[in-house]
Amino acid sequence: MKSDMERVVLITDFGVNDLYVGQLKGVLCGASMEIQIIDFFHDIPPFNIESAAWLISRCQHYFPPKSHWICVVDPGVGTPREALLVKLGERVFIGPDNGILGWALSQEDAQVHRIGTHWKPASATFHGRDLFAPVLVDWLNYRDLNRIGPAIQVAQCQPMPALLIKKPHGAQVKITHIDRFGNVVTALKYIDICWASAALVVNGISITKWVKTFADLRVGEVGMLVGGFGTVEIVANKAHAASMLSCKCGDWVDFLEKSVDAKNGD
Amino acid sequence: MKSDMERVVLITDFGVNDLYVGQLKGVLCGASMEIQIIDFFHDIPPFNIESAAWLISRCQHYFPPKSHWICVVDPGVGTPREALLVKLGERVFIGPDNGILGWALSQEDAQVHRIGTHWKPASATFHGRDLFAPVLVDWLNYRDLNRIGPAIQVAQCQPMPALLIKKPHGAQVKITHIDRFGNVVTALKYIDICWASAALVVNGISITKWVKTFADLRVGEVGMLVGGFGTVEIVANKAHAASMLSCKCGDWVDFLEKSVDAKNGD
Amino acid sequence: MKSDMERVVLITDFGVNDLYVGQLKGVLCGASMEIQIIDFFHDIPPFNIESAAWLISRCQHYFPPKSHWICVVDPGVGTPREALLVKLGERVFIGPDNGILGWALSQEDAQVHRIGTHWKPASATFHGRDLFAPVLVDWLNYRDLNRIGPAIQVAQCQPMPALLIKKPHGAQVKITHIDRFGNVVTALKYIDICWASAALVVNGISITKWVKTFADLRVGEVGMLVGGFGTVEIVANKAHAASMLSCKCGDWVDFLEKSVDAKNGD
Repeated sequence: MKSDMERVVLITDFGVNDLYVGQLKGVLCGASMEIQIIDFFHDIPPFNIESAAWLISRCQHYFPPKSHWICVVDPGVGTPREALLVKLGERVFIGPDNGILGWALSQEDAQVHRIGTHWKPASATFHGRDLFAPVLVDWLNYRDLNRIGPAIQVAQCQPMPALLIKKPHGAQVKITHIDRFGNVVTALKYIDICWASAALVVNGISITKWVKTFADLRVGEVGMLVGGFGTVEIVANKAHAASMLSCKCGDWVDFLEKSVDAKNGD
Repeated sequence: MKSDMERVVLITDFGVNDLYVGQLKGVLCGASMEIQIIDFFHDIPPFNIESAAWLISRCQHYFPPKSHWICVVDPGVGTPREALLVKLGERVFIGPDNGILGWALSQEDAQVHRIGTHWKPASATFHGRDLFAPVLVDWLNYRDLNRIGPAIQVAQCQPMPALLIKKPHGAQVKITHIDRFGNVVTALKYIDICWASAALVVNGISITKWVKTFADLRVGEVGMLVGGFGTVEIVANKAHAASMLSCKCGDWVDFLEKSVDAKNGD
Repeated sequence: MKSDMERVVLITDFGVNDLYVGQLKGVLCGASMEIQIIDFFHDIPPFNIESAAWLISRCQHYFPPKSHWICVVDPGVGTPREALLVKLGERVFIGPDNGILGWALSQEDAQVHRIGTHWKPASATFHGRDLFAPVLVDWLNYRDLNRIGPAIQVAQCQPMPALLIKKPHGAQVKITHIDRFGNVVTALKYIDICWASAALVVNGISITKWVKTFADLRVGEVGMLVGGFGTVEIVANKAHAASMLSCKCGDWVDFLEKSVDAKNGD
């Protein structure tokens, strides 16, 4: 099964319109077996660790077992922040120890190694090319965790950033992605409450209309649906919801289990 | 011949700066043979079905026989619109039944299957990942059209959108693409008329200068040439013709076989 | 070693948000062996030959020996400008003869062939797809330089553009890239002078603070470091240095070996 070949999945804030990804790929070509490189996402908003961490958690299962991840949102590059290799079954996740690897670290079978000080990246500013890619190539070529660095405990590492804070009758929840269509993706999982009377409040604007797909809204109307990440999204039909609500990735949104109007009607 | 390997060509309005393409690729990795995935174009203007349909028709021949297409511009996703697999020789085209597959449907040897109701996409909003990619993987792994859904007639499907309307002494023709340099690509094929006296009229501005390449124009001057799609383009030399003419993809342009000035001179 | 497979590395000003790259890749699929196509960089500022030439010179070594380059920044496309294939060991570089191939031409073992007049590109405006890609496919399939065109001397070709002009006590140096984070990359190599008192002057603003990495600056502060290309970059911590300095790729910057303040203090 070729679905069993080695793959490298890249998630970074390098931007597809820049050339950092291209250099990193050059280094990956040093692997001694054929690998397929997949650009998962390179336009994480610069420095937004929590968006990257969340997207990995929601999308890693789409990739076959031997898909290795290089994860680079790294505002602390060149400082003494640590870097990690997390092994989960047949695959590894590599990146800085700043929370971006939180999902992998939270898995029961996670084996964690700190990238050792014997790795001397050629630059202080581009560890994607000069540290993470060489470490992955070394792992692919030798399969020897001892070459990477010392085993450490999960508890010593930065966990997943908090993206939802429970409140009485609701929660504060992060906007974790805004897509090209302006759909506002949140970290709020669709759970077993009475959604008919629930609301999201963004910048003082209350959204209460619950739909199944875009076309259930009038053109330009704003509503909510369970989107492709399995979480609640605020969307508009053929319009840019994020612009209409003046919100951006990283903002907090208020979730009310029962909207005020619904309460009044009780 | 490796030019004979299986390939998947992607054309979507997902945007290369977003992460929908990356998820779709994860699903494609489930194919049981090695496939090469080619990002043909992901920045179709959102919801612009006719641009995608036209670009497929003008570019499909650049790809080897076993190049399968996933075509997703799909404003009706989640509604009862149908989805199709069109088989042409060794390759298949997969996408919604909204005209985007018009070129494939117009070919004499087209075998058309509706994607059956036994396919239950996990989301209502992302059929690229949850329906079209799994259908292609199933086709690649089993080569069994019966697994896809019922055979239907071409006449039951949405044809190619109309991109040219003939008029006395000319035509109305669509702008089908505007490239990063500002070149205005039209659906007007270069045909056997007296081009020396022909004109295109965009927003009231008449373009009459016919050149072979950009450098035949003065810097900033606007003219026409037969571009890389084999159709007429309005271009400027080292300047952004689309901005100068305030036009966008999807606009209509007037084509006059003889420009007014030329007529006056008759 | 799969690091020994044939690869094609692409550097162009086509833009990743456009569809010229996709068409070119279709033509490359005509190679008779499996090749891996790597998008090195497609967002060279339109027509900026010197940026492309410089980036090739600084990054070509990241790719394995059998990595062939197609290099297209080509404002003269369709005019009588020549096109070249430069062979260096096991790899070839293909592109217009306008300086973009300057690095390859400057290597001692460069074998240079002009792309002959028997190649008849189908379009006058898209030689990436219609000339350079077919020439590379022909080379990969036949390994016969005689099929490409006549051997010529390096001295007949356009050399690397000048990116640094020496001055008394300093130099003028080009900005060769501005990345998505706003880092201003220059062609100035880090050499053995007293950097502690050196300055870069951009639009009248003198930058004198020398750091190892971004986090050594206060948030929003501007400084200099040796970046991932091994040259001096002007950067800011979590801010967009290029916007703060109103500079762009292609601008000249003044480099003073000793800044004025330092001189005053002598």
